[in-house]
Amino acid sequence: MAAKANDVKTASAADAVALDPAALGVLLDGEYREIRDHVRALLERPELSPATPGLSREEHRERVLGQLRTLTGEGVSQYGFPVALGGRGGPGPSVAVFETLAFGDLSLLVKFGVQFGLFGGALLSLGTDDHHERFARPAMTLELPGCFAMTETGHGSNVQAIGTTATYDAAAAEFVIDTPDDSARKDYIGNAARDGRAAVVFAQLDVGGEQHGVHALVVPIRDAKGRPQAGVEIEDCGEKLGLNGVDNGRLRFTAVRVPRVALLNRYGDVSADGVYSSSINDPNKRFFTMLGTLVRGRVSVAGGALSATKVALALAVRYGSRRRQFGAPGQPETVLLDYRMHQRRLLPALATTYALHCAQQDLTAELQRSASDPAFGDEDQRRLEAHAAGLKAIATWHATATIQTCREACGGAGYLAANRLAALKADTDVFTTFEGDNTVLLQLVGKSLLTGYRDHVGDLDPLGLVGFVAGQAFEAVAERTAVRELIGRLADDLIPGREDEHDLRSRDYHLGLFRWREHHIVSGVARRIKRGVDAQLDPWDVFNGCQDHVIAAAHAHVDRVVLESFAAAVERCPDAGVAAVLAELCDLHALATIERERGWYQEHGRISSTRSKAITRVVNQLCADLRPIARELVEAFGIPGTALGAPVAGS
Amino acid sequence: MAAKANDVKTASAADAVALDPAALGVLLDGEYREIRDHVRALLERPELSPATPGLSREEHRERVLGQLRTLTGEGVSQYGFPVALGGRGGPGPSVAVFETLAFGDLSLLVKFGVQFGLFGGALLSLGTDDHHERFARPAMTLELPGCFAMTETGHGSNVQAIGTTATYDAAAAEFVIDTPDDSARKDYIGNAARDGRAAVVFAQLDVGGEQHGVHALVVPIRDAKGRPQAGVEIEDCGEKLGLNGVDNGRLRFTAVRVPRVALLNRYGDVSADGVYSSSINDPNKRFFTMLGTLVRGRVSVAGGALSATKVALALAVRYGSRRRQFGAPGQPETVLLDYRMHQRRLLPALATTYALHCAQQDLTAELQRSASDPAFGDEDQRRLEAHAAGLKAIATWHATATIQTCREACGGAGYLAANRLAALKADTDVFTTFEGDNTVLLQLVGKSLLTGYRDHVGDLDPLGLVGFVAGQAFEAVAERTAVRELIGRLADDLIPGREDEHDLRSRDYHLGLFRWREHHIVSGVARRIKRGVDAQLDPWDVFNGCQDHVIAAAHAHVDRVVLESFAAAVERCPDAGVAAVLAELCDLHALATIERERGWYQEHGRISSTRSKAITRVVNQLCADLRPIARELVEAFGIPGTALGAPVAGS
Repeated sequence: MAAKANDVKTASAADAVALDPAALGVLLDGEYREIRDHVRALLERPELSPATPGLSREEHRERVLGQLRTLTGEGVSQYGFPVALGGRGGPGPSVAVFETLAFGDLSLLVKFGVQFGLFGGALLSLGTDDHHERFARPAMTLELPGCFAMTETGHGSNVQAIGTTATYDAAAAEFVIDTPDDSARKDYIGNAARDGRAAVVFAQLDVGGEQHGVHALVVPIRDAKGRPQAGVEIEDCGEKLGLNGVDNGRLRFTAVRVPRVALLNRYGDVSADGVYSSSINDPNKRFFTMLGTLVRGRVSVAGGALSATKVALALAVRYGSRRRQFGAPGQPETVLLDYRMHQRRLLPALATTYALHCAQQDLTAELQRSASDPAFGDEDQRRLEAHAAGLKAIATWHATATIQTCREACGGAGYLAANRLAALKADTDVFTTFEGDNTVLLQLVGKSLLTGYRDHVGDLDPLGLVGFVAGQAFEAVAERTAVRELIGRLADDLIPGREDEHDLRSRDYHLGLFRWREHHIVSGVARRIKRGVDAQLDPWDVFNGCQDHVIAAAHAHVDRVVLESFAAAVERCPDAGVAAVLAELCDLHALATIERERGWYQEHGRISSTRSKAITRVVNQLCADLRPIARELVEAFGIPGTALGAPVAGS
Repeated sequence: MAAKANDVKTASAADAVALDPAALGVLLDGEYREIRDHVRALLERPELSPATPGLSREEHRERVLGQLRTLTGEGVSQYGFPVALGGRGGPGPSVAVFETLAFGDLSLLVKFGVQFGLFGGALLSLGTDDHHERFARPAMTLELPGCFAMTETGHGSNVQAIGTTATYDAAAAEFVIDTPDDSARKDYIGNAARDGRAAVVFAQLDVGGEQHGVHALVVPIRDAKGRPQAGVEIEDCGEKLGLNGVDNGRLRFTAVRVPRVALLNRYGDVSADGVYSSSINDPNKRFFTMLGTLVRGRVSVAGGALSATKVALALAVRYGSRRRQFGAPGQPETVLLDYRMHQRRLLPALATTYALHCAQQDLTAELQRSASDPAFGDEDQRRLEAHAAGLKAIATWHATATIQTCREACGGAGYLAANRLAALKADTDVFTTFEGDNTVLLQLVGKSLLTGYRDHVGDLDPLGLVGFVAGQAFEAVAERTAVRELIGRLADDLIPGREDEHDLRSRDYHLGLFRWREHHIVSGVARRIKRGVDAQLDPWDVFNGCQDHVIAAAHAHVDRVVLESFAAAVERCPDAGVAAVLAELCDLHALATIERERGWYQEHGRISSTRSKAITRVVNQLCADLRPIARELVEAFGIPGTALGAPVAGS
């Protein structure tokens, strides 16, 4: 009976696959295992555990600030700062810290990210030596709590359109910061409502009446006693859906003066007598180079979202492994995870979490290489930015969907705050729209695919492509771009054969289908845009008319990148037993994705209707096969006990 | 250019379709318009508006209790009680009240539902005249705040397995209520933690050592001063993901004695000398008849979920109609709702909300008929229960997904509690698992389809079917059941022709596809189960092996019922202009559903790959066509201003 794909294997001691969660955990932790273990050990301390539900906003904020001090005292913030400043890390270690902290209170995570990643990171990336010494060093030690003041009420994803101004007054050798209207108010700024003393403020730079675009300046917002500086109005954003331990606020500037050296001048400077200079002549390129420094934030958010997803899955799998409900007549009630639907709800999501974990590790390695490898060039940087944008979108949507499923899989117990799923849901919800709205990010990825990384992917204007397309012979472009590269690679990788020659469990078959989908959608969009441009239609209409298609291209691209990462991780796994389990997870992830996209694959004649139905059967079988080791698979995540102390998790 | 399906119409005065939201609103309100207007007017009062974010749990509970008193004072509770008790309504009006209250604070909604619908409803449905006078009357006036104590910690959906006992002591003519173990503790009970004085307690009835199954009794839990009664332990469930204005609690009974007349004895009674009697001999049938009285709760939850969805859509559509972001070079930034992706995210969800609204109205009419039409028979009741179960599941999942989308569509603003989406998300989240877990409910629907409503659909044991199937010649059963009825109807309705003969906008084509899908899946499951039974496999394994298939059958069934309701509403619409708009919405709902299921339709050769792609194009075009009247379409919902007072909604 077990041989029939339609049947479900129920868990029993005899069925249990031997899997050592510790061995798998070592593999998952990767090269930053020691750093992760340092943070894990700290999270086991009661004072660093997730906040008790029902704290008031003020109590929660106070607790998080205290926790931030503790982490800083334990040297955790140093992992994100260079040795020259007394730190001992770089972007890779800082992402590992962020991912591990995300097992705990996500308000603490975000507060940590704001202070050290955004505020500290902007000082490091956009400032020069003097800023590093005077601001980044005390930022690292928390002596200078700060904000990253980019977003404005009327300008979220479109940073290039912000309204705050920084006008140079040559006579005083000062910049004057102003908020011209309500839509230019800095909004949702973490650390602003309560604790921040300074802010890195993004503003339109005006020197002698000439506009030089968005630049960043260090602006004091509170004095040593915590009172707002003259000309700075601070408002509290108040209660939020989640993350209420973070003091988000609004900032408004009225003729606030800062000295000339407040300008973070790595990419653009103003001399005392008011002459603007920059190493990057093209203002557009300069803007996107500055924004490119945000990439660490996006990589961090993707990793944080995955950690929160792991906690939710661990809670739901543990609950599902012991909770009984209904069952065969006369028998004890059946364990939830023995139901096919319960397996289908949790196990493909678990497999995809493993897949995204592998992609996230590869992305982090690229991020670390960007800071340490002199050979890391412009094109590498663009590719990194595109991968970060794409993975951030897909990982955060996966988090939202999976945490929701886990909440429902725990029924009423999942609704009680004591069981943590409430906080996981609420706190991660904003991940889909902050650090770049997911839809906007996927559009950027889609654009980068179409232009072969020719334009800077940091270009947040989704319509930049239109000007680009309209201004050139698109065909010529397409020839030397990603589309062509794809075609070239496909010619080697994938010679489509008769589908019955491929085993549904063949990795090459999976990879071929993923690559073919990416290639087909990307080239299809390119043709549509070309047709529109050739017909002299309005470029905006042409691009907007394909917007769903562009985003589908980006999605297919990220899916392919993720599967390749997972497949590579399986290949290089040194432990045969662990590798066999990872291979099954990879099969489940790949086939569940193909199943999700089976409408498209059939539309394009790439899988037959018979094949499509067979895929569903194999997904079911893989769920049944993995069910006996589901608990070990979540144990391998190495989630601190304090994060799983919820009653729903059981013992 | 507008003729090309790939292009997007942008909103302009010239494009605007004339639609009178008021006329559409009258249609949507239906026969209970006056009742809805009464409640709407009350919700406009500041003291009945949604709670300000950031209230403490205790403040929120106190506010909600005060609001409940106000509503009661205004006679709103009377709509759920019969004239004989001083009421002026029945189930239909009570659902209309519930739907309208769901525009406001959902804690108030649930508190209202617990007191009048669950507690009051159980007294009315399961009790007799004495209980009506002594308990239901003061429940209606809120003199007796009460609980509906069914769910236990270890027994959620499987009510038949609850552990609480009610043992008759003939000598004292009393029942003794006991909680034998932790899993039998009453849990998540609304009104228990703070305000309830009495509870309808569901327990296993033991009379003279004989078990008679689950019955309900009225048990005092607090005295007039609010202190727990002797033998009653009360615990607070504490902070929840949402609905923190409702005081959910846990109840544990130790030898609590209640008089013999405390038994709600409509379906089973015990004489003073300890003789059990019932008008329903079959204990199973008796149980499901009692549970069938829960149907009003499920209808109410479906309606409440839809109202919350409407509020979220209204907020997101209003925000999307004025918020600008990016755009063509040199132009003002583009309004969000002019982007194709933004249309695709919001407008099909809006169309489906209209569809579900129509199905909900039909369901409510059936519910009202169940209470008022003597010809309403057993089979009608089973059909009503199946429809309620199915629509509750689909409507609440639709709410969760749509409110999430609306939150993301409002970006950072959507994350601020002041903009209400946070509360809508958190408060409705539990709708998917309370009043019957959605997966369990769909399984019930699937089972009812397979057995042709032969068994009582209230049978919460999803495996009852197995015994049923195993014990009979399935083929013979299938012949006289729903499967056959379906086949019969299909023969008349749908003679599949060549697909290019059908216009994609043809209602008959849509209905044919929906019906064919339902029929095909239901008969497919039936064949699989028969094969398994014929092969003498273990019935539990057979059923569990098709669990996903059974649920797919239920989903297809509900989809068909919903589309038929919407199509009928379009047909009978008296106003040609309104009818034209509704027809477009119905097209969008139908085609977006077919698009979602296009993997399945292609697998089964029912639509070609070419057709499948064409459907996506028409969905895009319908979104563009409806975009200019999106604001009017949400205005027609008649949401009180206080519920839309959020900054994100604009003016």
